[in-house]
Amino acid sequence: MKIAVLNGGSRQGGNTKILTEKLVKGLEVTTFHLEEYTIKPIMDGRHDEGGFHPVDDDYESLMGQVMSHDLLIFATPVYWYSMSAAMKLFIDRWSQTMREPEYGDFREQMSKKQAFVLAVGGDSPYMKALPLLQQFQHIFQFVHLPFSGYVLGQANKPGEIWEDHQALFAADEMNKKLHTMIKA
Amino acid sequence: MKIAVLNGGSRQGGNTKILTEKLVKGLEVTTFHLEEYTIKPIMDGRHDEGGFHPVDDDYESLMGQVMSHDLLIFATPVYWYSMSAAMKLFIDRWSQTMREPEYGDFREQMSKKQAFVLAVGGDSPYMKALPLLQQFQHIFQFVHLPFSGYVLGQANKPGEIWEDHQALFAADEMNKKLHTMIKA
Amino acid sequence: MKIAVLNGGSRQGGNTKILTEKLVKGLEVTTFHLEEYTIKPIMDGRHDEGGFHPVDDDYESLMGQVMSHDLLIFATPVYWYSMSAAMKLFIDRWSQTMREPEYGDFREQMSKKQAFVLAVGGDSPYMKALPLLQQFQHIFQFVHLPFSGYVLGQANKPGEIWEDHQALFAADEMNKKLHTMIKA
Amino acid sequence: MKIAVLNGGSRQGGNTKILTEKLVKGLEVTTFHLEEYTIKPIMDGRHDEGGFHPVDDDYESLMGQVMSHDLLIFATPVYWYSMSAAMKLFIDRWSQTMREPEYGDFREQMSKKQAFVLAVGGDSPYMKALPLLQQFQHIFQFVHLPFSGYVLGQANKPGEIWEDHQALFAADEMNKKLHTMIKA
Repeated sequence: MKIAVLNGGSRQGGNTKILTEKLVKGLEVTTFHLEEYTIKPIMDGRHDEGGFHPVDDDYESLMGQVMSHDLLIFATPVYWYSMSAAMKLFIDRWSQTMREPEYGDFREQMSKKQAFVLAVGGDSPYMKALPLLQQFQHIFQFVHLPFSGYVLGQANKPGEIWEDHQALFAADEMNKKLHTMIKA
Repeated sequence: MKIAVLNGGSRQGGNTKILTEKLVKGLEVTTFHLEEYTIKPIMDGRHDEGGFHPVDDDYESLMGQVMSHDLLIFATPVYWYSMSAAMKLFIDRWSQTMREPEYGDFREQMSKKQAFVLAVGGDSPYMKALPLLQQFQHIFQFVHLPFSGYVLGQANKPGEIWEDHQALFAADEMNKKLHTMIKA
Repeated sequence: MKIAVLNGGSRQGGNTKILTEKLVKGLEVTTFHLEEYTIKPIMDGRHDEGGFHPVDDDYESLMGQVMSHDLLIFATPVYWYSMSAAMKLFIDRWSQTMREPEYGDFREQMSKKQAFVLAVGGDSPYMKALPLLQQFQHIFQFVHLPFSGYVLGQANKPGEIWEDHQALFAADEMNKKLHTMIKA
Repeated sequence: MKIAVLNGGSRQGGNTKILTEKLVKGLEVTTFHLEEYTIKPIMDGRHDEGGFHPVDDDYESLMGQVMSHDLLIFATPVYWYSMSAAMKLFIDRWSQTMREPEYGDFREQMSKKQAFVLAVGGDSPYMKALPLLQQFQHIFQFVHLPFSGYVLGQANKPGEIWEDHQALFAADEMNKKLHTMIKA
């Protein structure tokens, strides 16, 4: 059972990173720092003759690697009450992937994985990040990817996440769950 | 009273574009096609010594032009239940703008403008785009920008928006409202 | 195809009533004014030995009548950002109904009906009634009742709904849809 | 600093009750079991000549007692994705209270209190109770009552809440917070 962390944050040693490390402690994971990849905004080709055009960037290779994992952890700072643009760039391109012949069974592949969300925000995330969670719910439902849990955290300044005991506890609990899943 | 359309869509002649044209019929507007600008993902420098670093892309110039308008229309296709990445890239960078000395009164400037949202989606937007609206509400509240109305539309294939009579009517109604505001 | 209106409002000639009348114009409907029925708050007996106790009120008879209809229109004023207590009293008791032997196939019965929601509020319902719609979505999903549409309206003083052109249009559109469904 | 628990649950020894007891451990609180009071559905008299009519039930006396407290804990099972009808009956009547001469400064009184929400549900409350939290947010904002925190819990069968470690932890954390507030 292979675990991928999709990290949408931009800051070195940021709060999202700290909380994510707690979440995956003792586990073997591959972390993809999305900001390190060049991913262009999707050009909607769903209804074009010939469909989507190939795009010269890192998306396809990245997506290929991501899809070889079984547990996908979407770890993002809450920027303006939703996922970071770096993460949104990545997810928007799924529209293209769903039409690639090699992903003809995209939903079936996804249905066998599990998704977790970790999101850290500075402005009342326990209330104002709820729409973000609902969006992830819709996204995962659309691709038949089971939504197995989430952790919210509140933090602004670097390191401030250490003061959000509830977030730390939730990350620990989910860490235990992941360890159990890995063994199973 | 100057009107700016911030268009987050990618498709020529797409449904978002059609509905937006209905919304601004007979009005003088400046349309910014966000996908035509190079906007890099934000590098969070809020807590760095020296703050944010200057970024070599089109954002600053674009934002300068946008801010010279009084009514801001955020027109986006609903991609994966939220705004397009092209639009998110733009909004994420506001974190940087808010710290620029020349925008020391960013919120005060915003408080004198008005925002409208237009969003067109293919998968039950009347239900599943509600989190998107809530996010815009949070975004606008944060910068003190009055949220003056929204139009949702349901469409998938190009031109399908012409079948969503409720969306067309709502766009017409808001068009009347805009005409009244312009005259006032 | 029989249509039931479940009216959760309390005011004679209120805005909810006006908009509902527009919605069902020209159609034969049975209207249940929920406030006219005595419905006691549910006593959760799901985990009691012997299950739920019979309750001496109007609920069971009312529910029996409601279930003989094919289209269920939930028409409620938005009180404190959700459905009226009169309507909530009614829905809460479904927990009991689901365990009645005579409703052993409650979900299957519901899956053959269709639900519509009409909600009129005074405080920004186009934004602040969105959680209410999401709740109805969850409720209907739980009982497998297809959610076929909704109409929101904004009004405070009696008759003010006549000024919400978008609501009136939406009610008209849905009225057409209902006429088509009836004929089919 | 006086604490009131408004308990909307119906079950003896239910999960909501267990979690609430953890939340208020070691604190002096007055608990109001809403189901033990007769509260009639509101008859909207806002626009009637003469306004609201006096209602012969327990509401007014109950509300008087509640208002003598400084911290209000709204503890409800999640019934059909929102608060119990017993609690909704109570809150709906606030519309009447706001117009009572003796509560002329209702909002000002409320602005000096603090509200907490505790909600326990059986069907994915960590996702599906989010609209409920948003409603409480709107309710509290409307009456200027600061929303100081919430605890969600997942449980179905009696006692099952003991297995939701995150809920137990959150209740403990909030208990500490309450103890600190009481001392201040």
